[in-house]
Parts: sequence; C-alpha cells; structure tokens
Amino acid sequence: MANKVNLAAKLDAFDDHWSPKIVGRYNDNDIMVVKVLGEFVWHHHDDTDDFFLVLKGKLTIETEQGDVTLGPGEFYVVPKGIRHRPIAAEETHLLLIEPGGTPNTGDDATAVQKTSI
Amino acid sequence: MANKVNLAAKLDAFDDHWSPKIVGRYNDNDIMVVKVLGEFVWHHHDDTDDFFLVLKGKLTIETEQGDVTLGPGEFYVVPKGIRHRPIAAEETHLLLIEPGGTPNTGDDATAVQKTSI
Repeated sequence: MANKVNLAAKLDAFDDHWSPKIVGRYNDNDIMVVKVLGEFVWHHHDDTDDFFLVLKGKLTIETEQGDVTLGPGEFYVVPKGIRHRPIAAEETHLLLIEPGGTPNTGDDATAVQKTSI
Repeated sequence: MANKVNLAAKLDAFDDHWSPKIVGRYNDNDIMVVKVLGEFVWHHHDDTDDFFLVLKGKLTIETEQGDVTLGPGEFYVVPKGIRHRPIAAEETHLLLIEPGGTPNTGDDATAVQKTSI
C-alpha cells in the first residue's frame, strides 16, 4: 500500500523556493509542498481554483479582488481565472493542491517542472 | 472576495464527532474539518479517493490493504474503492477533501448531512 506522508519530513528534503514538490495524489490532483520567499509573478489559472494552506510562516496573496494574509493553519482558495501574486517576507512553507499538470505560473512556457519527492 | 479560513477557529465552532463541516471549496471538492473519536464504520467510495490530514491527535486508518497511523502534519489518501475504517483512541482533528456530495459512509442512506460553517 502507499505510505503516509509526513509534511515536515518532505519539507526537510529540499531548500529551493517557488518549486513545488509533489508528495501525493488525490484523484486527478497533485498534493504538493513548497517553500517560498519573496515575490512570485502575477498569474492566473484559466481552468482551476488554487488552494494554499500555510504550514509555517506568513503568506500574502495579492489578488485583483483584494489581498489576504495567511498564517499557519490558515488557507485560501484563489478562484479560477482570478489574477493573483503570492508574496512571503519570510521563508514560508505551504501545502498546495492543483490538478496534475497545472503550470505554477499559469503558463507552460514559464512554469517550473514539478518533481515528486 | 471570499475570506481566508482559519482551521482552529472553525474547529472551535463545534463539538460533535464524525460530522464533517464544509469550510471551503476547491473546484468541485469540499474542504472539510471534522472531530473524530472512537471507531467509524467500514466503508469505501466507488468514485473517489479519500484525503485525510491530521491536524491534532492521532488517527489509525485500517484498510483492506493494511493499516496506517497518522499524527499531526501527516496525511494519507485512501485510494478509490478501497475499504477502510478510521479509528481514533483520543479526540482527533482532521482536514478532509472529498468531491462535493460524497457520503461520509460511502452510502447515501447512512451518511450524515454535511453542513457549511
């Protein structure tokens, strides 16, 4: 059978920022952890909502509809099609859920390759 | 815009067990929190995987393929169709993700009505 996933252990296994690592699958979705620091790019996803749960640190998500700031144990779902930009002033750890194959920048040309760990 | 969700605040808002509360939506999925204690019923879901993340406490998921025990910050995805039974010897808090309308027992006749909080 598949193993359980310990989020802290997965996060200990890498150091790079803005490079989501796939740690599980739920139906057709990737469950990912990522470390972020600084500003990401403004982007949107035409076909999917975007789920962010803060595990450690603090994340501001600027959106075209207003901004939201999340601490540990808080989540926000950016609706499909809404332009947004995540910003973290300190290193922040996130749990993300997106349909498999979703480019993290909203654009295959600029997206990082998501790897499984 | 929709508000962020603080999981601890949502969990403070109710006391009953085995009655998932919908706290957000991601695409066609319900994001839920639930408090559990004791043994649930053996069941399976024909059409969906079943995502369990422990926020507090300890959860054993017995499955027909073996058992897994999760502590805080650990998740497990029960594959579609696999019979399973969650058990918690102490009160345990979980984050769950399931497609909207999924009966918690795998059977509409015995499922609890999920409410949004």
